[in-house]
Amino acid sequence: MIRLVIGNKAYSSWSLRGWLAVKQSGLPFEEVTVPLYDAEWDKRRGGGEFAPSGGKVPLLWDGDTVVWDSLAIIEWLADKVGRDHFWPEDDAARGMARSMAAEMHSSFAALRRECSMNIRARFPFKPPATDVAQDIVRVLQLWAEARARWGSGGPFLFGAFGAADIMYAPVVTRFVTYQIPVPGFAAAYMEAVLAHRWMQDWIAAAQEEEWVIERYEPQPA
Amino acid sequence: MIRLVIGNKAYSSWSLRGWLAVKQSGLPFEEVTVPLYDAEWDKRRGGGEFAPSGGKVPLLWDGDTVVWDSLAIIEWLADKVGRDHFWPEDDAARGMARSMAAEMHSSFAALRRECSMNIRARFPFKPPATDVAQDIVRVLQLWAEARARWGSGGPFLFGAFGAADIMYAPVVTRFVTYQIPVPGFAAAYMEAVLAHRWMQDWIAAAQEEEWVIERYEPQPA
Repeated sequence: MIRLVIGNKAYSSWSLRGWLAVKQSGLPFEEVTVPLYDAEWDKRRGGGEFAPSGGKVPLLWDGDTVVWDSLAIIEWLADKVGRDHFWPEDDAARGMARSMAAEMHSSFAALRRECSMNIRARFPFKPPATDVAQDIVRVLQLWAEARARWGSGGPFLFGAFGAADIMYAPVVTRFVTYQIPVPGFAAAYMEAVLAHRWMQDWIAAAQEEEWVIERYEPQPA
Repeated sequence: MIRLVIGNKAYSSWSLRGWLAVKQSGLPFEEVTVPLYDAEWDKRRGGGEFAPSGGKVPLLWDGDTVVWDSLAIIEWLADKVGRDHFWPEDDAARGMARSMAAEMHSSFAALRRECSMNIRARFPFKPPATDVAQDIVRVLQLWAEARARWGSGGPFLFGAFGAADIMYAPVVTRFVTYQIPVPGFAAAYMEAVLAHRWMQDWIAAAQEEEWVIERYEPQPA
């Protein structure tokens, strides 16, 4: 049985990615939530099931195998259940999906810093700083191209829900939280993501969480 | 025929990763070097073969397919030539290799900022700032664990040369450039990487480059 160790559902964007990845695999799993930045987290992050990642979430345990980092979890699960659960079949589409997912993984530092995930909150729109605005434009450009070229088979970036959507799902919630104005095609895509059953489940669970963090600084993992 | 667009061999750590990945695939490819930050780069990055990545290197073109970002390039090539060219066969080893590669891709910001790749230079060792020191310790810890658990089949992280080595190869050159003191197992691993034929070729080509940049700020891609 797979065990997935995650942080707060309200705040931990990398946990959301890892959790959606395991959902997407279709494999049964047990979910272990360790709230970030409370005493329990401080106590547990130093050792045991947290140790391999240096204290970051998400981590996936499968017997003696441990995989940390959301993108590694996606690829490891794709090995296990088949690549077509996560990535487009077409070579060119898969090239773009993998590139977009990797860019989300390594980049968009300004957007992640200034608009950290906070699923339960809504903040009035403020014109973003230049670097944040550039990140937003780049996200919209990638979404537009994927939808236009590859999105005909469904409402998601490459038609069916997959790894690229998993990587950008926290960005969808950020655009809602910070009330970023988006063009119609992006609003439609965001609506599809937010209406997805797993996102509904995650958001509902986030609403139930008792922990409140004034300002959560995300750490990629 | 694959075309790989890369930046300066002396400075562009992400280009080194992409280039090693194509070498590792065994596929023939054409290499297009566009020196970073000179007029040619400024002219070309806005459009044409640079456009999909937003002006970052490396990019891989294969017919109409474009893949940018070193980790996406690795995975896309692994799809094409077989996963075993890049990743360990064993599930647990592959879980760790994928996790280490992803951690290199998203993290180690302090090390990358303060010790940017500069293959031709040697700087006297200076005690690093706390965050850089933490990154160095974490790299050494990951190398130690991979070598101890999975390295028996050869001198590289998981025995044979693979994706994890490709992702950490620029770190090997940084430890040399900044003369970071390392324990014996790490020195032996670094020696194996630096002695690899492709690294020798890359380093020799870097020596021949005419461009000199005072201080290159790396941009992940």
